[in-house]
Amino acid sequence: MNHWMSIALMEAAEGMDRGEGGPFGAVIVKDGEVIARAHNEVLKTNDPTAHAEILAIRKASEALGTFDLSGCVLYASCYPCPMCMGAILWARIPTVCYGASMEDAAAGGFDDAHFYAMIRNPHTALDLRPAGTEKAKKLFERWLAKEDRRLY
Amino acid sequence: MNHWMSIALMEAAEGMDRGEGGPFGAVIVKDGEVIARAHNEVLKTNDPTAHAEILAIRKASEALGTFDLSGCVLYASCYPCPMCMGAILWARIPTVCYGASMEDAAAGGFDDAHFYAMIRNPHTALDLRPAGTEKAKKLFERWLAKEDRRLY
Repeated sequence: MNHWMSIALMEAAEGMDRGEGGPFGAVIVKDGEVIARAHNEVLKTNDPTAHAEILAIRKASEALGTFDLSGCVLYASCYPCPMCMGAILWARIPTVCYGASMEDAAAGGFDDAHFYAMIRNPHTALDLRPAGTEKAKKLFERWLAKEDRRLY
Repeated sequence: MNHWMSIALMEAAEGMDRGEGGPFGAVIVKDGEVIARAHNEVLKTNDPTAHAEILAIRKASEALGTFDLSGCVLYASCYPCPMCMGAILWARIPTVCYGASMEDAAAGGFDDAHFYAMIRNPHTALDLRPAGTEKAKKLFERWLAKEDRRLY
């Protein structure tokens, strides 16, 4: 069993046993060292975004002082949900090792496959309405005209 | 122009002008009151998850003391990216009003449409590898056997 994955599973078990969230853990490794480890804290913090992967990414970017985690590998106890997969993409993490599958998670009461289906067609799951479009578009003109803008 | 949307656009402009992040703002409203407002802080905090919607959801769940924001409406200056859309679904926010479209964002250098394509097929964008599957699956058995587990 992969050493880093065993840490991710340990995080998951600890968080679950403490009642801090579901059985999910994540570890971020760079150059053979653990940069960040975290477990789901949705129940502890009441924060619906406090998934293990999101918390690990936040810790790793703080530790490394950059939003670019392209040199890192993420180990997750379970296949990441769409929110976490989006965060992984934004963080430019190229490699993800996952333990349980989406099907395993569904059997445990966490139906991420349904979430993936909704993300494919958000308007079927949500009431999504445009508003203030013209003024909102102008923000991007201001952004492109901003001489000191930093890309991320 | 919608009052709440104008606050979201104001947040976006302020964050951009201060160099804290891209031109993105979000406001969460419940029963006609602003519960949370935020703008993108990726550049300020180096946190790749610090999108306006994520920060607003975190603030709103803290303010209301629950991860269930089903009574809320989210106003976002731009169509949410997949990470934020996932967070909106986890937070059970049923209604989202958005300003600029994904196409407007792409013209401004933020190619969320590409992100949506990657989220549909994460394995084409990332090196996704299973590891430790059997041990990881067992976590869900422990979760289901946990008598005091809380659903979220």
